[in-house]
Amino acid sequence: MTDQVTRSADDLKALCVRALCRVGVGEADAGITADVLVAADLRGVASHGVAHLRRYVDGLRAGTIVACPQERVVTETPATAALDAGAGLGPPVSCRAMHKAIEKAAAVGAGFVTVRNSNHFGIAGYYAMLALPYDCIGLALTNASPKAVPTFGRDAVLGTNPIAVAAPARRERPFVLDMATTTVPLGRLEIADRLGKPLPAGWAIDRNGLPAVDAHRALEEFRRNAGGGLLPLGGVGEALSGHKGYGLAVAVEIFSALLSGAAFATLTYPRTREGQPLAANLGHFFGAWRIDAFRPPDEFRAAMDELQQLLKNAPKAAGQERIYIHGEKEHEALERSLKEGIRLRPQLAADLDALALELGL
Amino acid sequence: MTDQVTRSADDLKALCVRALCRVGVGEADAGITADVLVAADLRGVASHGVAHLRRYVDGLRAGTIVACPQERVVTETPATAALDAGAGLGPPVSCRAMHKAIEKAAAVGAGFVTVRNSNHFGIAGYYAMLALPYDCIGLALTNASPKAVPTFGRDAVLGTNPIAVAAPARRERPFVLDMATTTVPLGRLEIADRLGKPLPAGWAIDRNGLPAVDAHRALEEFRRNAGGGLLPLGGVGEALSGHKGYGLAVAVEIFSALLSGAAFATLTYPRTREGQPLAANLGHFFGAWRIDAFRPPDEFRAAMDELQQLLKNAPKAAGQERIYIHGEKEHEALERSLKEGIRLRPQLAADLDALALELGL
Repeated sequence: MTDQVTRSADDLKALCVRALCRVGVGEADAGITADVLVAADLRGVASHGVAHLRRYVDGLRAGTIVACPQERVVTETPATAALDAGAGLGPPVSCRAMHKAIEKAAAVGAGFVTVRNSNHFGIAGYYAMLALPYDCIGLALTNASPKAVPTFGRDAVLGTNPIAVAAPARRERPFVLDMATTTVPLGRLEIADRLGKPLPAGWAIDRNGLPAVDAHRALEEFRRNAGGGLLPLGGVGEALSGHKGYGLAVAVEIFSALLSGAAFATLTYPRTREGQPLAANLGHFFGAWRIDAFRPPDEFRAAMDELQQLLKNAPKAAGQERIYIHGEKEHEALERSLKEGIRLRPQLAADLDALALELGL
Repeated sequence: MTDQVTRSADDLKALCVRALCRVGVGEADAGITADVLVAADLRGVASHGVAHLRRYVDGLRAGTIVACPQERVVTETPATAALDAGAGLGPPVSCRAMHKAIEKAAAVGAGFVTVRNSNHFGIAGYYAMLALPYDCIGLALTNASPKAVPTFGRDAVLGTNPIAVAAPARRERPFVLDMATTTVPLGRLEIADRLGKPLPAGWAIDRNGLPAVDAHRALEEFRRNAGGGLLPLGGVGEALSGHKGYGLAVAVEIFSALLSGAAFATLTYPRTREGQPLAANLGHFFGAWRIDAFRPPDEFRAAMDELQQLLKNAPKAAGQERIYIHGEKEHEALERSLKEGIRLRPQLAADLDALALELGL
């Protein structure tokens, strides 16, 4: 831990807000984006946190992300809406879309809002959790740049396409599932690379479609588009049901990109003929189900507690002491980082300092 | 193949209808149940087909499944409804629930119907696919008897809790994902047992929570409740993200059982103090999203074709010739079985004959 730098959440948020405002984003949208990014760091999901700030700023400066986008409702029914993000930042439109889904759930029992023409939205769990104070179950899905290889393929076609579901409990913490549909995110390969550790079979494949062992080579090949990529949850081939993770990734692509009218699979992050990047045109899908549309919320919450207790108190495997509920580890990380600050890799801390300097903050 | 018996779909359906009617089920509900069971066999999913007929008949004779149930709507909003199946057969109430979800989608854009106090419903994909002719995306989830072990546990707490999603295309076949959230269903262990093959790590764990290798012993231990069970998609521990499959199983449990008010986890299939089985009280969750509530269906269908082509035409891994789309293998099995009949294991065919004899058919 001695090689890490600690920053407070407030300091990091302030930096994000000032940086985004400096490149033209309005204060409200900058505030939402800062909150979403820092929420990831607070919850221990560093891969989705302020590490993305430079990428957002770069996109805004290059114009592939629009600072003050023309956001609009494309179509709407009592239970659904389709938004166009106008190529703006992902987090602000995603928060508005999720709140629209929650309003629709309040009105007719369930609500679903797609977003097209959007950008990277941070952690999916953030949006699913927005439903919790409204006694709703929340859902958030997004597509992403191609990193995942379909079963029996050898090139990345689909994104890590996360699924996030949040459901409230009574005394227990809410259930918060927030998972990429690949076995691991690319960040895990980067960590293995830094540590010089071999990759476990099931994480990634090389340019020939065979299990990748050397993290450095796998990353290098992937980054120069030579082939290879992340394996879907379940790993290589069908022996351990990699086709299921692949199927979940396709389902997420359908809901977030095909239903919304966004770019999909290898068509995301398009470029001009000259190789200049255009707007990413990612798609998201948000949903909310009002619990009392199905069952008295008190009963539901009591059952959530009971299910969690059944799971936590179940006999443990040899050598294990604890069965976790999804969201528990992240909640514990949150409590720790609120108390002790957010630990950043020194390289990231230095890059944030450099970015602040570049922007004249 | 010489050790298999071939039957036509019509013969098998007729047998199911007559058997179910003989134990008190009305003709309409018997017809739906027959169609759902035989659909599984037709699609090559023998584990969910007519192999269940005896179990259904036994339940109806024992009264744990009610032949003429009092099905009712517990609560309803424009986009949602909660049904009580009255402990009847799973397939008839599930078809009605899915059609209700589709009707709600037609009215307000999306519709969701939970079912409680139900029984085994066959293949989840059947219900998701009901949405296809209505230009909807369909979703079906159910909980089930405990077979799956939570990450770091050693006893089965959750069911194989399947997720089924169906979405239409234009020229390509519909996308039909129908997957248990465990790496494999119990039937795969039974096949390994019959063949005397060792189990791959990632399929199941033994009573100590260690990877099970001997299928026979694992099944024997599991069946006498000594511990062990199926591993969630992603396998043992967190190394290959078994906690993700576990999280999906919890999410399915929440939507199908906790939201509906059904029994959940180890509380399904309750028994009296004397050990007599009571009604299973399973729960299901059905959903439909009207595509035109988000986007013109023609555009969506064209994009579905394009996504499928991108996936199918992607470069193949060494030694592989084909990348599949979910539902393709099952559709090919369907075409084959419609032409050549349904192949049954001789033991199953003999048991169906014995059942027919017992019922005086």
